[in-house]
Amino acid sequence: MKKPPVAEIISIGTELLLGEIVDTNASFIAAKLRDLGIFVYRKSTLGDNLERLANAITEALARADLIILSGGLGPTDDDTTREAIAAALNEKPAIDSRLLENLQKMFAARKRPMAEKNKKQAWLINSATALDNPVGTACGWMVKKDGKIIVALPGPPSELTRMWNEQVEPRLPVSGQVLFHKTIHTTGIGESDLAEKISQFTMLESPGIGTYARKSGVDVRVAAVATTRQMAIEIAQPVIANIEKILAPWIFGYDDETVVSAIKKILDLRRETISCMESVTGGQLASELTNCPGISTCFKGSITAYTNQIKITAGVAEELINRHGAVSAEVALAMAKASQKMFNTTWGLATTGVAGPDCLEGKTPGTAWVAVTGPGIEYTTFQDWPGDREMVKNRVCRTVLQSFFNTLKEKGQG
Amino acid sequence: MKKPPVAEIISIGTELLLGEIVDTNASFIAAKLRDLGIFVYRKSTLGDNLERLANAITEALARADLIILSGGLGPTDDDTTREAIAAALNEKPAIDSRLLENLQKMFAARKRPMAEKNKKQAWLINSATALDNPVGTACGWMVKKDGKIIVALPGPPSELTRMWNEQVEPRLPVSGQVLFHKTIHTTGIGESDLAEKISQFTMLESPGIGTYARKSGVDVRVAAVATTRQMAIEIAQPVIANIEKILAPWIFGYDDETVVSAIKKILDLRRETISCMESVTGGQLASELTNCPGISTCFKGSITAYTNQIKITAGVAEELINRHGAVSAEVALAMAKASQKMFNTTWGLATTGVAGPDCLEGKTPGTAWVAVTGPGIEYTTFQDWPGDREMVKNRVCRTVLQSFFNTLKEKGQG
Repeated sequence: MKKPPVAEIISIGTELLLGEIVDTNASFIAAKLRDLGIFVYRKSTLGDNLERLANAITEALARADLIILSGGLGPTDDDTTREAIAAALNEKPAIDSRLLENLQKMFAARKRPMAEKNKKQAWLINSATALDNPVGTACGWMVKKDGKIIVALPGPPSELTRMWNEQVEPRLPVSGQVLFHKTIHTTGIGESDLAEKISQFTMLESPGIGTYARKSGVDVRVAAVATTRQMAIEIAQPVIANIEKILAPWIFGYDDETVVSAIKKILDLRRETISCMESVTGGQLASELTNCPGISTCFKGSITAYTNQIKITAGVAEELINRHGAVSAEVALAMAKASQKMFNTTWGLATTGVAGPDCLEGKTPGTAWVAVTGPGIEYTTFQDWPGDREMVKNRVCRTVLQSFFNTLKEKGQG
Repeated sequence: MKKPPVAEIISIGTELLLGEIVDTNASFIAAKLRDLGIFVYRKSTLGDNLERLANAITEALARADLIILSGGLGPTDDDTTREAIAAALNEKPAIDSRLLENLQKMFAARKRPMAEKNKKQAWLINSATALDNPVGTACGWMVKKDGKIIVALPGPPSELTRMWNEQVEPRLPVSGQVLFHKTIHTTGIGESDLAEKISQFTMLESPGIGTYARKSGVDVRVAAVATTRQMAIEIAQPVIANIEKILAPWIFGYDDETVVSAIKKILDLRRETISCMESVTGGQLASELTNCPGISTCFKGSITAYTNQIKITAGVAEELINRHGAVSAEVALAMAKASQKMFNTTWGLATTGVAGPDCLEGKTPGTAWVAVTGPGIEYTTFQDWPGDREMVKNRVCRTVLQSFFNTLKEKGQG
């Protein structure tokens, strides 16, 4: 069997090294290559420095079959991608008359003078062909030499993605390999526990299995490469089925599914509805629910009650707050019930706690109660997990959504 | 003068190569190193593969003084950062009894059994000291050998950032160069317009000036490097003062300030309060407000009214909805007023619109009205900017927060 091609991605630009910009180009290219069955073994980011960039290209050529470069194709002195490729391949760039003409036309159309500096955007080397840029002045390069391919694309994402789709992908060699992958989302089980339960499969050469701790829980990714999609599925599917059996109590969805979309699926099926009353999560719970397309079939609304007075106005008994404090199991439960009543829903979710940085009612940041109320069900969950405001809000959202999802699943089985 | 130290950042995890996750850790570390005057010449990302990772560490050691690794410190077989560092340095990891004890205590505190696999999280090599992880099971490593430093941190951003701030930064060598920088946040002016207004300064060699288009508006960053902080400030300050004069109408804050913290500052000063009624933003507006520490001094609450019935219950006239539709300037205004009344606040903010993917009342996704009501002021702003749900929610939040901030500023000057 032919060995699948190996690629490296090099992103170029000092601003990417300064930590101010997140490099979405590299993620885009990586996802595209993965779907073509091309393995990416390394991504690198380098600043606008000719010597270091030329070295990085030389190193990558020794490891990979395909190198994708983004950025450094502008007209200014600190744009050195063309020079670096030429240096790494020991070639000399020269102005290409067709490219120069295109460039001049483009400036004329924009009624702007073309600076002398821009001429280097019409450079080519012998082993390169130009990749036209329909939306900018920087054309790309596709270099083929000694069985290796180097692709250079401009940095602006709108130019790069369009040129990738229209010009790069159709010209890439077909790997003869197809990747099939499926991600199984779990919640309520730790990564090491989960890994031990499926350890008989993680040792396999193929399909490859990875576990990833996420905000939402632990993901298991199963991936197989074969010459046809059907063969890749046949390698992956039996292992997926076995893992599903082992992890059934914790699985909430696959691939693009989220806890919220899983909750929506069950509620829609049962024609049930939810609403929330939030204190510590301050609107984030509603916001996570409303990120899910079509959620209005089951989600009716939420009230962020950031003062005791509003909690009382919304239906929480003043006496409860006075006796137990606003951050208490009793008030969490009363909030969930009040939201059920106010929004006239099957289920009520509530959160109360201390987001910090200051203590509240003598309780420390991270202390929180969440409540779930519904037909024949009411319970609270306590948590105490310190962190900054955003971490606390996040974790309380995880807790209430996950426990609600589990409640829905158990209820369905009961 | 001593040559400033050179660093490389290596991010580890197959998921980072698959294009599914944007690597915010590398950006965080790069920004922190920059502020310490340490130059980052290269960032790399590698998958969970011991041999390739060990090679990458060996290569980086040949180029850099300091190598920061993130990820690969979990308990499972595909977590190979400890093994790779040991291999690159030709050392052998062994269980450290103090670390093992800590780990056992942590599992006991969480009332969960410790899996055998977790023991490798208590490994050390001779040239490494442990960096405690107060919020997770993966401790970090700080390795000093042959004049080089390797730092390994766990991948979850909440763990990495805290460990960086508390344990890594205080232990890093001082470079002899100090960077002073200030970021000026503006809103309501485009990047090219802004760049033209301050073009006399962007040409300067020092201080260096960069403009960055952000979700919140355009940032201007002024940075100077010198041998003392005082000297760096003296280079930057006169330029900052000039830029402030030119951009005064659009500046809302500096450095860590946000539109929300700027709003809070003004409201607290005037002892005024706000509340919201949200439809299209679905809780995100409240959530952005409650991300700001201490916001409860001025923010009383918000209601996400995801059905017409809830809007009516909350005080919007049914007749208005019937006549103009829920997505209308009239209803936006009524929602803002209803929230003012319900939460008894000085100001009311409201959002209504179409988040998509489906049309609503014949209006397309991205169509939205926001309303601001307060003492002697009421107005609505229309926007129509297509995008997916999260983009639409985001942009509507930007619009309402920025227009409210501008209203507060103008009112103060009137």
